Amino acid sequence: MAKINANYQKLQASYLFSEIAKRIRSYSEKNPSAKVIRLGIGDVVLPLPPPIVDALKGAADEMARKESFKGYGPEQGYDFLLAAVAAHYQSQGAQVAADEVFVSDGSKCDTANIQEIFATDNVVAVTDPVYPVYVDSSVMTGRTGAIDDKGRFGGLVYLPTTAENGFDPALPAQKVDLIYLCSPNNPTGAVLSRASLERWVKYAREHEAIILFDAAYEAFIREPGLCHSIYEIPGARECAIEFRSLSKTAGFTGTRCAFTVVPKELKARNDKGEPMPLHPLWMRRQTTKFNGVSYPIQKAAAAVFSPAGKAAVDANIAYYMENARIIHDGLLAAGYSVYGGVNAPYIWLKVPAGLTSWQFFDKLLDVANVVGTPGSGFGSCGEGYFRLSAFGFRENVEEAVDRIKKRLPA
Amino acid sequence: MAKINANYQKLQASYLFSEIAKRIRSYSEKNPSAKVIRLGIGDVVLPLPPPIVDALKGAADEMARKESFKGYGPEQGYDFLLAAVAAHYQSQGAQVAADEVFVSDGSKCDTANIQEIFATDNVVAVTDPVYPVYVDSSVMTGRTGAIDDKGRFGGLVYLPTTAENGFDPALPAQKVDLIYLCSPNNPTGAVLSRASLERWVKYAREHEAIILFDAAYEAFIREPGLCHSIYEIPGARECAIEFRSLSKTAGFTGTRCAFTVVPKELKARNDKGEPMPLHPLWMRRQTTKFNGVSYPIQKAAAAVFSPAGKAAVDANIAYYMENARIIHDGLLAAGYSVYGGVNAPYIWLKVPAGLTSWQFFDKLLDVANVVGTPGSGFGSCGEGYFRLSAFGFRENVEEAVDRIKKRLPA
Repeated sequence: MAKINANYQKLQASYLFSEIAKRIRSYSEKNPSAKVIRLGIGDVVLPLPPPIVDALKGAADEMARKESFKGYGPEQGYDFLLAAVAAHYQSQGAQVAADEVFVSDGSKCDTANIQEIFATDNVVAVTDPVYPVYVDSSVMTGRTGAIDDKGRFGGLVYLPTTAENGFDPALPAQKVDLIYLCSPNNPTGAVLSRASLERWVKYAREHEAIILFDAAYEAFIREPGLCHSIYEIPGARECAIEFRSLSKTAGFTGTRCAFTVVPKELKARNDKGEPMPLHPLWMRRQTTKFNGVSYPIQKAAAAVFSPAGKAAVDANIAYYMENARIIHDGLLAAGYSVYGGVNAPYIWLKVPAGLTSWQFFDKLLDVANVVGTPGSGFGSCGEGYFRLSAFGFRENVEEAVDRIKKRLPA
Repeated sequence: MAKINANYQKLQASYLFSEIAKRIRSYSEKNPSAKVIRLGIGDVVLPLPPPIVDALKGAADEMARKESFKGYGPEQGYDFLLAAVAAHYQSQGAQVAADEVFVSDGSKCDTANIQEIFATDNVVAVTDPVYPVYVDSSVMTGRTGAIDDKGRFGGLVYLPTTAENGFDPALPAQKVDLIYLCSPNNPTGAVLSRASLERWVKYAREHEAIILFDAAYEAFIREPGLCHSIYEIPGARECAIEFRSLSKTAGFTGTRCAFTVVPKELKARNDKGEPMPLHPLWMRRQTTKFNGVSYPIQKAAAAVFSPAGKAAVDANIAYYMENARIIHDGLLAAGYSVYGGVNAPYIWLKVPAGLTSWQFFDKLLDVANVVGTPGSGFGSCGEGYFRLSAFGFRENVEEAVDRIKKRLPA
């Protein structure tokens, strides 16, 4: 008799974005003339730049000719892309070899799938608020107990990350084995300082924990001195896996390409307590359960690292970060407590006293016709906060900020 | 202290194709003038047809314009592709709704990842010989014990599939919960008859087992009356998940697109013994751990189902199947016992008496400079057999067959 994975029954229905869509629909039906501006979902809007599109089309032409057609490629990714990624790391002051890079179709997949190479009884730590995939994938793989009335799963270690601690979570008080860190952070927009990363690397090495470092937003860091990669920290190669994505960096949310770095030095222990390298395990996972990213997409991805591609992508990031500045400064002027938005495309604001995140959502939609994401959707410590995304067209961002300033000052 | 998933240590190194590559390299170094013809790996060689390349390039152009740019798409796939797949099923006499189709980047991923929605203690049955991914993914997820000296894992139920039973495996004698069936079969090239599929559906329904039906090669079926989909069998919608791929069908091994069907009726039991639908579980798995296939690739995939795309793809399949006929008939004429090759792009031959699969590999390489795949690489019941692939250019296939006929008759 086939049985389901009962861990799935612990999951809550993923209400967040469907609930948002439902409330917008309901509002728009009652107010058909309202022009709703959506700064909720973190999805890019600018088209792919010409150097990237040209690379994609050039690769399509290669696939049309017998002489240049590509069948199965290496599951880990083509050498031309691995080399480009390694060189990019080098330019950022981090040592990553080409054969430590694994190209994939998304960081969402990789941050979730990486759990497969670890023992099920490893204890997972996440920040609160948190990108929900880390939590849900921990639940699905049986690393948690049931959910409590605050929406927290037993067995997971939650690290509060709020304005009170400057969005710099304290080290865990109890033993943890796998630590998800996301910097620049989704949803708070905060960046962990070099000192903070050094603290985490020291902790991980002392406790033989593995840091799962999600750097999907590193390209949005504007201030000098902040780390783009955890491998800028000495010792991180012995305790961290890093995830990077072209989704936001290069407008690839619909084109799909990301990569994960597993350093050769990185080890975890087997049942006998012997240290085992993780690189061959992830290689085995990927070669068995993945067939590599589409060749034309890998060519498009490599173009992101060409001089022309990099210039175009940097211009798009600058566009979004000007949006972030407009939102950040506008909300500040309107009297809000505002976080993030300086080195990340997310603005995390404190909702006015007396309102929950969802109540502010409704008020913002009703009064300003602007859509954001309630902070409580990212965890119980997100209650009282609200996320606005800088991924939008300038005119919409400006209008949204104007409306908030005029109609809904804090 | 982070610990590895100890199940990975049960896996054998995947020696098959690396060992093949090593032996070819060694032979070629000693015999630099030998023209080696490779009919080993099942990878396509014909370029993507123009309607598919045009669709890919057209979608790339869409991504270049603000008005038509696509960010995140539905994880399950775009409606235009889901509808095309459902219509194709309809044309084959199988009822599949568009919202039962899940587009992915490969059947290898899906046939492995599908295990995530089932309980770990479910017993898995596989044929022997078998596509190694079903076995390795079962090992990785902790559904097996250790490996024995025949290369079989404890806890897995192996169903011998040899010339003796006409490559039509007997129903399992012991309780099984998940049954991997691949028809047309890789590696044997055999197709399960309608009667055989009816037998399996009856068995699965009676025992509440789930059939994981890999139909990646259905497009290669030439004879009328054979089933392209398990859903042509009444009752299969209550007991089977079907996997299909464009890899071999449309030359997508390097382009990457596949799909999986989970019927709405399909259920398995939870811990309390209650029947639970599997469709929402797979939806949850995919929305949490996958971000959908690249938009341009989905447009290319949809073109496979257009009249022009279908005609072009059918012509390529006919080309490969003429290769299969040449290999099949040539080896028969050379005195070999030959199976498959009529409704599948694989020819499965009995190696001459007294030789192991690997000894025949060496002899074929040495005497005829032809490379194939030793049957023992697919399981202990593959010993004494050998796989030749029809995926090659005509002139190479003809020359390989000529050489075998002249230099290595059975």
